[in-house]
Amino acid sequence: MADVTPIETLGLELRRGAIVLAVLAQLQREHYGYSLRKALLEKGLEVDEGTLYPLVRRLEKQGLLVSEWREEAKRRKRFYTISPAGRDALHRLLEEWRRLNASIAATLEEGGR
Amino acid sequence: MADVTPIETLGLELRRGAIVLAVLAQLQREHYGYSLRKALLEKGLEVDEGTLYPLVRRLEKQGLLVSEWREEAKRRKRFYTISPAGRDALHRLLEEWRRLNASIAATLEEGGR
Repeated sequence: MADVTPIETLGLELRRGAIVLAVLAQLQREHYGYSLRKALLEKGLEVDEGTLYPLVRRLEKQGLLVSEWREEAKRRKRFYTISPAGRDALHRLLEEWRRLNASIAATLEEGGR
Repeated sequence: MADVTPIETLGLELRRGAIVLAVLAQLQREHYGYSLRKALLEKGLEVDEGTLYPLVRRLEKQGLLVSEWREEAKRRKRFYTISPAGRDALHRLLEEWRRLNASIAATLEEGGR
Protein backbone atom coordinates (compact mmCIF):
# COMPACT_ATOMS: atom_id res chain seq x y z
CA MET A 1 0.00 0.00 0.00
CA ALA A 2 1.31 3.44 -0.93
CA ASP A 3 2.21 5.93 1.77
CA VAL A 4 -0.47 8.51 2.47
CA THR A 5 0.71 12.03 3.23
CA PRO A 6 -0.97 14.19 5.90
CA ILE A 7 -2.48 16.36 3.15
CA GLU A 8 -3.94 13.31 1.45
CA THR A 9 -5.42 12.17 4.77
CA LEU A 10 -7.03 15.60 5.22
CA GLY A 11 -8.41 15.38 1.68
CA LEU A 12 -9.89 11.97 2.46
CA GLU A 13 -11.54 13.33 5.62
CA LEU A 14 -13.06 16.09 3.54
CA ARG A 15 -14.39 13.62 0.97
CA ARG A 16 -15.83 11.17 3.50
CA GLY A 17 -18.67 13.38 4.65
CA ALA A 18 -19.34 14.83 1.22
CA ILE A 19 -19.70 11.36 -0.31
CA VAL A 20 -22.49 10.46 2.12
CA LEU A 21 -24.32 13.63 1.16
CA ALA A 22 -23.93 12.95 -2.57
CA VAL A 23 -25.06 9.32 -2.19
CA LEU A 24 -28.21 10.30 -0.30
CA ALA A 25 -28.96 13.06 -2.85
CA GLN A 26 -28.39 10.74 -5.79
CA LEU A 27 -30.59 8.00 -4.30
CA GLN A 28 -33.62 10.24 -4.44
CA ARG A 29 -33.73 8.23 -7.64
CA GLU A 30 -33.41 4.45 -7.50
CA HIS A 31 -30.03 2.96 -8.44
CA TYR A 32 -28.18 -0.31 -8.18
CA GLY A 33 -24.52 -0.24 -7.15
CA TYR A 34 -22.95 0.12 -10.55
CA SER A 35 -25.43 2.72 -11.85
CA LEU A 36 -25.02 4.75 -8.64
CA ARG A 37 -21.26 4.74 -9.06
CA LYS A 38 -21.65 5.84 -12.69
CA ALA A 39 -24.13 8.63 -11.82
CA LEU A 40 -21.73 10.04 -9.20
CA LEU A 41 -18.79 9.78 -11.59
CA GLU A 42 -20.72 11.77 -14.20
CA LYS A 43 -20.94 14.52 -11.60
CA GLY A 44 -17.20 14.49 -11.05
CA LEU A 45 -17.26 12.36 -7.90
CA GLU A 46 -15.21 9.20 -8.28
CA VAL A 47 -15.88 6.74 -5.46
CA ASP A 48 -14.27 3.34 -5.68
CA GLU A 49 -16.36 0.21 -5.19
CA GLY A 50 -14.61 -0.70 -1.95
CA THR A 51 -15.83 2.56 -0.45
CA LEU A 52 -19.22 2.95 -2.11
CA TYR A 53 -20.73 -0.49 -1.62
CA PRO A 54 -19.99 -0.81 2.11
CA LEU A 55 -21.25 2.76 2.57
CA VAL A 56 -24.54 1.99 0.87
CA ARG A 57 -25.00 -1.12 3.02
CA ARG A 58 -24.22 0.87 6.15
CA LEU A 59 -26.73 3.58 5.23
CA GLU A 60 -29.37 0.89 4.67
CA LYS A 61 -28.59 -0.66 8.04
CA GLN A 62 -29.05 2.78 9.58
CA GLY A 63 -32.48 3.01 7.97
CA LEU A 64 -31.56 5.85 5.61
CA LEU A 65 -31.92 3.73 2.47
CA VAL A 66 -34.23 0.91 1.45
CA SER A 67 -33.33 -1.80 -1.04
CA GLU A 68 -35.06 -4.36 -3.19
CA TRP A 69 -33.75 -7.25 -5.30
CA ARG A 70 -35.11 -7.23 -8.84
CA GLU A 71 -34.21 -8.72 -12.17
CA GLU A 72 -32.97 -6.37 -14.85
CA ALA A 73 -31.42 -7.38 -18.18
CA LYS A 74 -31.67 -11.01 -16.97
CA ARG A 75 -29.58 -10.31 -13.86
CA ARG A 76 -30.73 -9.95 -10.29
CA LYS A 77 -29.69 -6.58 -8.93
CA ARG A 78 -30.17 -4.84 -5.63
CA PHE A 79 -31.82 -1.45 -6.11
CA TYR A 80 -31.45 1.25 -3.46
CA THR A 81 -33.60 4.34 -2.80
CA ILE A 82 -33.65 6.90 -0.05
CA SER A 83 -36.10 6.25 2.84
CA PRO A 84 -38.21 8.90 4.61
CA ALA A 85 -35.61 8.94 7.43
CA GLY A 86 -32.94 9.29 4.74
CA ARG A 87 -34.71 12.34 3.30
CA ASP A 88 -34.79 13.88 6.74
CA ALA A 89 -31.06 13.15 7.14
CA LEU A 90 -30.34 14.59 3.69
CA HIS A 91 -32.08 17.86 4.52
CA ARG A 92 -30.32 18.19 7.86
CA LEU A 93 -26.92 17.36 6.40
CA LEU A 94 -27.46 19.82 3.57
CA GLU A 95 -28.23 22.55 6.07
CA GLU A 96 -25.02 21.68 7.93
CA TRP A 97 -23.07 21.61 4.65
CA ARG A 98 -24.37 25.07 3.71
CA ARG A 99 -23.49 26.45 7.13
CA LEU A 100 -19.97 25.01 6.82
CA ASN A 101 -19.67 26.48 3.35
CA ALA A 102 -20.68 29.92 4.61
CA SER A 103 -18.18 29.72 7.49
CA ILE A 104 -15.33 28.67 5.21
CA ALA A 105 -16.20 31.40 2.73
CA ALA A 106 -16.19 33.99 5.55
CA THR A 107 -12.79 32.78 6.77
CA LEU A 108 -11.33 33.07 3.29
CA GLU A 109 -12.95 36.40 2.55
CA GLU A 110 -11.33 37.85 5.61
CA GLY A 111 -8.04 36.75 4.04
CA GLY A 112 -6.89 35.66 7.44
CA ARG A 113 -7.44 39.15 8.85
CA MET B 1 -22.19 10.44 27.42
CA ALA B 2 -25.29 11.11 25.35
CA ASP B 3 -26.27 8.70 22.60
CA VAL B 4 -25.30 9.83 19.14
CA THR B 5 -27.74 9.06 16.33
CA PRO B 6 -26.51 7.93 12.89
CA ILE B 7 -27.50 11.35 11.48
CA GLU B 8 -25.46 13.12 14.14
CA THR B 9 -22.49 10.90 13.32
CA LEU B 10 -22.83 11.80 9.64
CA GLY B 11 -22.99 15.48 10.57
CA LEU B 12 -19.81 15.11 12.62
CA GLU B 13 -18.04 13.45 9.69
CA LEU B 14 -19.08 16.36 7.52
CA ARG B 15 -17.77 18.88 10.05
CA ARG B 16 -14.45 17.15 10.66
CA GLY B 17 -12.96 17.89 7.26
CA ALA B 18 -14.48 21.36 7.03
CA ILE B 19 -13.02 22.39 10.39
CA VAL B 20 -9.47 21.62 9.21
CA LEU B 21 -10.08 23.79 6.18
CA ALA B 22 -11.45 26.67 8.25
CA VAL B 23 -8.58 26.44 10.78
CA LEU B 24 -5.92 26.58 8.05
CA ALA B 25 -7.74 29.48 6.34
CA GLN B 26 -8.11 31.38 9.62
CA LEU B 27 -4.45 30.87 10.54
CA GLN B 28 -3.31 32.85 7.53
CA ARG B 29 -3.40 35.35 10.36
CA GLU B 30 -1.68 34.57 13.66
CA HIS B 31 -3.89 33.43 16.55
CA TYR B 32 -3.55 31.82 19.94
CA GLY B 33 -6.01 29.10 20.89
CA TYR B 34 -8.72 31.23 22.42
CA SER B 35 -8.63 33.95 19.74
CA LEU B 36 -8.75 31.29 17.01
CA ARG B 37 -11.80 29.73 18.61
CA LYS B 38 -13.45 33.14 18.83
CA ALA B 39 -12.63 34.06 15.22
CA LEU B 40 -14.19 30.80 13.98
CA LEU B 41 -17.23 31.28 16.20
CA GLU B 42 -17.76 34.75 14.72
CA LYS B 43 -18.00 33.03 11.34
CA GLY B 44 -20.65 30.65 12.61
CA LEU B 45 -18.32 27.72 13.25
CA GLU B 46 -18.42 26.58 16.86
CA VAL B 47 -15.57 24.19 17.65
CA ASP B 48 -15.15 23.11 21.24
CA GLU B 49 -11.75 23.33 22.92
CA GLY B 50 -11.42 19.56 23.20
CA THR B 51 -11.55 19.35 19.41
CA LEU B 52 -9.76 22.53 18.38
CA TYR B 53 -6.67 22.45 20.56
CA PRO B 54 -5.64 18.85 19.76
CA LEU B 55 -6.33 19.56 16.07
CA VAL B 56 -4.05 22.60 16.08
CA ARG B 57 -1.29 20.59 17.79
CA ARG B 58 -1.71 17.80 15.24
CA LEU B 59 -1.50 20.24 12.31
CA GLU B 60 1.68 21.70 13.78
CA LYS B 61 3.19 18.23 14.19
CA GLN B 62 2.35 17.61 10.52
CA GLY B 63 4.26 20.77 9.60
CA LEU B 64 1.19 22.68 8.40
CA LEU B 65 1.35 25.25 11.20
CA VAL B 66 4.18 26.93 13.08
CA SER B 67 3.92 28.21 16.63
CA GLU B 68 5.73 30.57 18.93
CA TRP B 69 5.38 31.32 22.65
CA ARG B 70 5.06 35.01 23.40
CA GLU B 71 3.88 37.18 26.24
CA GLU B 72 0.70 39.15 25.68
CA ALA B 73 -1.25 41.05 28.34
CA LYS B 74 1.24 39.65 30.85
CA ARG B 75 0.48 36.05 29.97
CA ARG B 76 2.54 33.65 27.92
CA LYS B 77 0.53 32.40 24.96
CA ARG B 78 1.26 30.08 22.09
CA PHE B 79 0.63 31.80 18.77
CA TYR B 80 -0.02 29.71 15.65
CA THR B 81 0.32 30.66 11.97
CA ILE B 82 0.09 28.68 8.77
CA SER B 83 3.41 27.41 7.33
CA PRO B 84 4.36 27.32 3.63
CA ALA B 85 3.41 23.61 3.57
CA GLY B 86 0.14 24.57 5.25
CA ARG B 87 -0.58 27.11 2.53
CA ASP B 88 0.00 24.44 -0.07
CA ALA B 89 -2.35 22.10 1.82
CA LEU B 90 -4.96 24.85 2.14
CA HIS B 91 -4.96 25.47 -1.61
CA ARG B 92 -5.21 21.78 -2.43
CA LEU B 93 -7.98 21.18 0.11
CA LEU B 94 -9.90 24.20 -1.16
CA GLU B 95 -9.75 22.81 -4.68
CA GLU B 96 -11.05 19.48 -3.39
CA TRP B 97 -13.78 21.27 -1.40
CA ARG B 98 -14.89 23.20 -4.49
CA ARG B 99 -14.96 20.03 -6.57
CA LEU B 100 -17.07 18.30 -3.90
CA ASN B 101 -19.39 21.30 -3.76
CA ALA B 102 -19.87 21.20 -7.52
CA SER B 103 -20.61 17.45 -7.45
CA ILE B 104 -23.14 17.78 -4.64
CA ALA B 105 -24.81 20.72 -6.39
CA ALA B 106 -25.06 18.66 -9.60
CA THR B 107 -26.60 15.73 -7.72
CA LEU B 108 -29.21 17.98 -6.14
CA GLU B 109 -29.92 19.89 -9.33
CA GLU B 110 -30.76 16.67 -11.07
CA GLY B 111 -33.33 16.21 -8.31
CA GLY B 112 -32.36 12.56 -8.15
CA ARG B 113 -33.17 12.09 -11.82
